[in-house]
Amino acid sequence: MKTTISSNVLYAAIADVRAKSPLVHNITNYVVMNNSANALLAVGASPVMAHWVSEMEEMTSIAGALVLNIGTLDDAWIEGMLAAGKSAMRRGTPIILDPVGAGATSQRTEAAMKIIEECHPTIIRGNASEIMALVDAGVRSKGVDSSASSDDAVESARRLACETGAVVVISGETDYITNGKDVYTVVGGSPLMTSVTGMGCTSTALVGAFAAVQPDPMVAATAAMAVMSLAGERAAEYSRGNGSMQVNFLDELYNLRSLDFARGDM
Amino acid sequence: MKTTISSNVLYAAIADVRAKSPLVHNITNYVVMNNSANALLAVGASPVMAHWVSEMEEMTSIAGALVLNIGTLDDAWIEGMLAAGKSAMRRGTPIILDPVGAGATSQRTEAAMKIIEECHPTIIRGNASEIMALVDAGVRSKGVDSSASSDDAVESARRLACETGAVVVISGETDYITNGKDVYTVVGGSPLMTSVTGMGCTSTALVGAFAAVQPDPMVAATAAMAVMSLAGERAAEYSRGNGSMQVNFLDELYNLRSLDFARGDM
Amino acid sequence: MKTTISSNVLYAAIADVRAKSPLVHNITNYVVMNNSANALLAVGASPVMAHWVSEMEEMTSIAGALVLNIGTLDDAWIEGMLAAGKSAMRRGTPIILDPVGAGATSQRTEAAMKIIEECHPTIIRGNASEIMALVDAGVRSKGVDSSASSDDAVESARRLACETGAVVVISGETDYITNGKDVYTVVGGSPLMTSVTGMGCTSTALVGAFAAVQPDPMVAATAAMAVMSLAGERAAEYSRGNGSMQVNFLDELYNLRSLDFARGDM
Repeated sequence: MKTTISSNVLYAAIADVRAKSPLVHNITNYVVMNNSANALLAVGASPVMAHWVSEMEEMTSIAGALVLNIGTLDDAWIEGMLAAGKSAMRRGTPIILDPVGAGATSQRTEAAMKIIEECHPTIIRGNASEIMALVDAGVRSKGVDSSASSDDAVESARRLACETGAVVVISGETDYITNGKDVYTVVGGSPLMTSVTGMGCTSTALVGAFAAVQPDPMVAATAAMAVMSLAGERAAEYSRGNGSMQVNFLDELYNLRSLDFARGDM
Repeated sequence: MKTTISSNVLYAAIADVRAKSPLVHNITNYVVMNNSANALLAVGASPVMAHWVSEMEEMTSIAGALVLNIGTLDDAWIEGMLAAGKSAMRRGTPIILDPVGAGATSQRTEAAMKIIEECHPTIIRGNASEIMALVDAGVRSKGVDSSASSDDAVESARRLACETGAVVVISGETDYITNGKDVYTVVGGSPLMTSVTGMGCTSTALVGAFAAVQPDPMVAATAAMAVMSLAGERAAEYSRGNGSMQVNFLDELYNLRSLDFARGDM
Repeated sequence: MKTTISSNVLYAAIADVRAKSPLVHNITNYVVMNNSANALLAVGASPVMAHWVSEMEEMTSIAGALVLNIGTLDDAWIEGMLAAGKSAMRRGTPIILDPVGAGATSQRTEAAMKIIEECHPTIIRGNASEIMALVDAGVRSKGVDSSASSDDAVESARRLACETGAVVVISGETDYITNGKDVYTVVGGSPLMTSVTGMGCTSTALVGAFAAVQPDPMVAATAAMAVMSLAGERAAEYSRGNGSMQVNFLDELYNLRSLDFARGDM
């Protein structure tokens, strides 16, 4: 794994998550809830999954970050996301949006745009197709997997960042993180990660953990993507397929705690 | 594993899924979503989970198959299933129904019958109790696990196939696949599979992947059951319990890609 | 693992679950459904997950225990829980309540209290913060993880048991099980269990399995917590992180079947 931020900054960000154990409030899709919660626990954060409109105000009041993921959407969940998002916005709590499947259906693209307009997310993370669809409604994607490379989407990400004020992350072989001006990168990971469902969603959840303790969203997002990439590489070395990869990835995330990033062993 | 279809046909079906990577649209239960998605990725398909009525028309328009699974049902989900099912039927997209828990409550039996009547599924896959309950409303099953053997249910499957025009699959120690006239079989698997939740649901999802690329539903369903059986056998050899079995099963599915089925090493 | 009940009684309880394979009806949260179902299968019970109001009456009529877990609540699910709870109460079916996140938001505390008042659960299992919040509305907890030790909560548990007539379980480094008069304990487990999401929820599901076959709720709850603790200890010995821990824990639960508890090898 190679990334724009220094290993010192990266390690400090990780140590910060562990020291503060931020509560990360997730309104996310059914497919990935278990893995996202375990990934958050593995890096030392405290996950809570809650979508009930009635408790959104109170739940956001105790959370360090809010993660909104539209992977398995319906009207009731959009209502919960908007309630939580507006409450978090008023409090200045970082909001991270994962526009899963934007471009696959117009309803998903519109739901993502509505959240962007009404809740002003701090960070938006998607794959290339999703980010492109948010900038150009003409882009269609096939389901929830990307049909474009992250390299092709950098200009879209930059535009989306400028238009929304959010830091935009495109994940792919190379991850790009941009505030519209600067572009940070993370190179690494493993192709096997694309065969494990919800790896993108998990990275969005981790962005939440870092954003909860790290004031600079460029650093928070880059640190999360770097951690994903590093754990993915290591897990892939001894995984036989996507079953063991899902398990080993969590173990590697969990054991980053004992790594000496500062020694430059990345 | 022993099956009615030849290893050449079986391997061609698998290669076809990998080559075409069909988008399989699942409206399935909460318990199995993660595993079903990973199983679909393992065989090379592209899963999407979506149940929101508003996006059903667009989502079915890009999917190669629709999987409807009533495992954790409620009114809103039935509405989503019927919307998706009717849209898929109009487009000629194969629909696969898993009547989870039919016979356990009359509401489930009725929901499954309603989907059959209004959406005309191409393939129906259930355990013995579920298939029997769809033919004879007097049959009660205990929860979602079968209380009958698949051998006992073959006549019910044949009748259900004749009445509905669907290919009917009963999974069990021997899997039976019938269009009402012919009966194909798959013998194999492992008893440990019954201790892993959602293995039946996973097989239904895989039937979706094969049906998306394979015009003959008898072959599609048989290939899916054969793949389940083979991966299950291999995984059971080195699994210590149902935890490792769930993981190893995915790894074996994933590694079927390197097997030379044609050499008859099954 | 050390516990108040004798290894004979514990082993008999486990053997009973295996012999009778009770159907345990769960209305639980999305995060843990897969693991709870697999844990129930591992100990020999038969899980069903169902929340649809329309089928609650019929589903509770065939279940040996009802597990209500408020981890990812909303209005529709509360309606399902109350319908199932009242039906189970009328039938004398044991009800086990897991008040996940009570104290994190007032809505969760109130929902838990409403279930207690209207359905009279047989057993309530929570972490220290949750149990304390049910007794003293002033106690706030951070999300779904406990911010108090189980030792501090014993008096709250005793009071809650007296007020509600339920056996109350606090899980933690030491688990306390009380009917308001007697206090049983289980000491053991592993710190790694707190890094796996939903371990508490899994223990509640197992309490359901034991309560379905065991008339004394003190013994049922203690046996379930002892089994959790023992499987957790053993799994932690060879787990590298929370990923493998989740898998190995299920394997250990599954293999308790071959252990000779009676020989005192605990």
